[in-house]
Amino acid sequence: MTEVQAKKPQESLQDRLAQVVDLLNRHHLVEELAHRQEGPNQARVENLVHRQNLVKLQRRLDELHPADIAYILEALPLDDRLMVWQLVKADRDGEILLEVSDAVRETLLADMDDHEILAAAKELDADELADLAAELPRDVVHELMESLDAQQRERVRSVLSYEDDRVGALMDFEMVTIREDVALEVVLRYLRRLKELPGHTDKLFVVDYDGVLKGVLPIKRLLVNDPEKQVAEVMAADPVSFHPDGDAYEAAQAFERYDLVSSPVVDKNGKLIGRLTIDQMVDLIREEGEAEVLNMAGLREEEDIFASVWKSVGNRWAWLAVNLVTAFLASRVIGLFEDSIEKLVALAALMPIVAGIGGNSGNQTITMIVRAMALDQVNTANTSRLLRKELGVSLVNGVVWGGVIGAVAYLLYGSWSLGVVMTVAMTLNLLLAALMGVLIPMTLVKMGRDPAMGASVMITAMTDSGGFFIFLGLASLFLL
Amino acid sequence: MTEVQAKKPQESLQDRLAQVVDLLNRHHLVEELAHRQEGPNQARVENLVHRQNLVKLQRRLDELHPADIAYILEALPLDDRLMVWQLVKADRDGEILLEVSDAVRETLLADMDDHEILAAAKELDADELADLAAELPRDVVHELMESLDAQQRERVRSVLSYEDDRVGALMDFEMVTIREDVALEVVLRYLRRLKELPGHTDKLFVVDYDGVLKGVLPIKRLLVNDPEKQVAEVMAADPVSFHPDGDAYEAAQAFERYDLVSSPVVDKNGKLIGRLTIDQMVDLIREEGEAEVLNMAGLREEEDIFASVWKSVGNRWAWLAVNLVTAFLASRVIGLFEDSIEKLVALAALMPIVAGIGGNSGNQTITMIVRAMALDQVNTANTSRLLRKELGVSLVNGVVWGGVIGAVAYLLYGSWSLGVVMTVAMTLNLLLAALMGVLIPMTLVKMGRDPAMGASVMITAMTDSGGFFIFLGLASLFLL
Repeated sequence: MTEVQAKKPQESLQDRLAQVVDLLNRHHLVEELAHRQEGPNQARVENLVHRQNLVKLQRRLDELHPADIAYILEALPLDDRLMVWQLVKADRDGEILLEVSDAVRETLLADMDDHEILAAAKELDADELADLAAELPRDVVHELMESLDAQQRERVRSVLSYEDDRVGALMDFEMVTIREDVALEVVLRYLRRLKELPGHTDKLFVVDYDGVLKGVLPIKRLLVNDPEKQVAEVMAADPVSFHPDGDAYEAAQAFERYDLVSSPVVDKNGKLIGRLTIDQMVDLIREEGEAEVLNMAGLREEEDIFASVWKSVGNRWAWLAVNLVTAFLASRVIGLFEDSIEKLVALAALMPIVAGIGGNSGNQTITMIVRAMALDQVNTANTSRLLRKELGVSLVNGVVWGGVIGAVAYLLYGSWSLGVVMTVAMTLNLLLAALMGVLIPMTLVKMGRDPAMGASVMITAMTDSGGFFIFLGLASLFLL
Repeated sequence: MTEVQAKKPQESLQDRLAQVVDLLNRHHLVEELAHRQEGPNQARVENLVHRQNLVKLQRRLDELHPADIAYILEALPLDDRLMVWQLVKADRDGEILLEVSDAVRETLLADMDDHEILAAAKELDADELADLAAELPRDVVHELMESLDAQQRERVRSVLSYEDDRVGALMDFEMVTIREDVALEVVLRYLRRLKELPGHTDKLFVVDYDGVLKGVLPIKRLLVNDPEKQVAEVMAADPVSFHPDGDAYEAAQAFERYDLVSSPVVDKNGKLIGRLTIDQMVDLIREEGEAEVLNMAGLREEEDIFASVWKSVGNRWAWLAVNLVTAFLASRVIGLFEDSIEKLVALAALMPIVAGIGGNSGNQTITMIVRAMALDQVNTANTSRLLRKELGVSLVNGVVWGGVIGAVAYLLYGSWSLGVVMTVAMTLNLLLAALMGVLIPMTLVKMGRDPAMGASVMITAMTDSGGFFIFLGLASLFLL
């Protein structure tokens, strides 16, 4: 527990980062000077200043909460990041590794030898170990498991046996359990003997002799009720609980809906096997929000903002390649109508308007639908109603904005029939955008994919090719 | 407190929704039959079935947690939504109103008369009242304020005096305060006399006689320490605390970083005036994530998915209008080069590829930067480094993908110079996309705006106009 180390947020995170950066810069300056002037005395003086600076930096880091250090590590370029990482006390390494983003953790682990990693990991609980295990070298994990006692090893194995998106992968084992046939007085005495309670203990878990969950005793009730009363009289007998193979994100939503702080995890037979806490759920809620944003833009995962150019290219190339193919197809659609464009070159200037507005409107629709799907508000019963609404919105926008741009086309090129074609094409492309904006995420979900996956690239592909085809096709039919 | 009402999530939310929808459909069916057959006896029978159905539905709703009812209301089309709303017991209206989204709340309030609203609001605490007040009719708010005692009224006023994005707007007043010079024993007895503790009470607030915060006593410590000890010996003397005019989102990030459940809010003089709790912060974290997605797509706010077509048009028209202007500008850029296109119509087919890939790549960059900004990882010190990295990624992508598409252009049109122009234009447009992807959100932030605001529309505008200009310009110079 590091409650006391957390500085008041009034001194903002950026301030703390700025202080560290300042100390780092001073350090770099001294190093640079030392490189330039190579006299032996000079070097000794520089060396002294150098060391003083590092000591200052180390002292500053020691005062900071692990989460703050994680934040600073993420905001620093690689060389500075590794230097700060070396200065952090070894017994805090484990906690900090848990806090940093995946991409940054990778850079930190790459800088540690097996011995250091092992030392860091030994400070962690079973569930925390399991979180890290996937990213540690194989033999380190092996050695680590050997060093654990049987119960701990079993727990790490159990957490590792669940997929990342399951409740089981997020549970911890710091439950305080009591029996239902004792007085609150006894519970109070029992807690006092424990000396310390796990974080986020807002309720105690009431189990029978087989470990089956009978209820929960909220600490609040323990405190306000007569100590003579029995646990069974006071406990909540039908608490919200989760299965280890339940969906983790649904659990997070339940935490949010029912304002939970901790909750029991039980197996098929009702046996208590772990618990979930709000801090894990908050991380999940944030990650889901982030994943949605990243997926829609066609990024594979969160990037370390100072990742090498090559890493970033790797993260982004897949959807760019898809986009290249779709852009090429759109280009071939235009190719079909090259004769028409040669005859009426205004078409070339006007066609991107039809495609662009369609893309924008389609992105609005798909964003809406993906949001609603994340909140479980879309189901087969209301799909057709949703579709009707989106088509309605498109029709209004098509007639209004298509009308405006049709009038502009008439004013620019003096042809009223061109204006009409423009208006009709825009309306049709907006309807296509609405249709695809609803159907693309639904199809992705039916295929078992994330509805946000590359949503933006796909809808734009549809509205580009579709827009060009509709506009140039109508123009070829009616204007030439 | 509705802990007991929360059903196990194993029975999923969708199941609960499906049950309600099923009962509603039966109700509709009966109504329809009653309309068709108008005989007096027939009508009486239908009426009976009708009433039985409604009673069943009402009973089902009574069992549900307010948050679940809110979810169901959000997922139902307007007519069904209002019917369910009428069936909900009046004393739960207030709690449910707090849970639903803004858009849906508006539809529910529109359906209630002043008397009903007043009754619903009376069930709420000061901070909850303040949350609702902005959306209630003026005279209802006035009447409501009259009905409160002086302290409550003062509290509502105080919460209302802060902007939505300030800590003060989110604080509640359910603090349990104690003095530092008493024994834990005394604190335990005091709590027992309170009969009930507020939700999310994981710590007690230690104040002096002037109400100045001296520290916090975590319940965990209260439970494990010797009851003979004084509060002052056991409390945390330097807790994380917030100012009412601090940034609410920064507070939420602090809750996440330091794994807080509740935290004191103090004024300039250190006087305790309220507290923040994790449930409010979780809502904020989710809302921020949502706002980012919506803003990037150019939606003004979250939409009720069953909003009327007109409401939806209102939510979306602003960015569509901006897009229309930018699309028109891009079209004028093409207009400048109509002569070139007339001479070499292949240009018309190839130009959308250059613009499209630029837009996609720019969206990836801007998404990355907006994310990093939301996490406070971007500052003036590392901007140039970030920019260099993004330009590097673009250069690689430009040479690789530009090369591919250049080769394709050569194969299609048999002109190697056209291929070279294509490659160069794509590389330049990708560099422009990287530059704008970094500069647009930074400029927005400097102007005090949300960096995600219409980011997608703006970056696409740049890469469209820019792409057309670069490609057609180069082609005119070197190919004709």
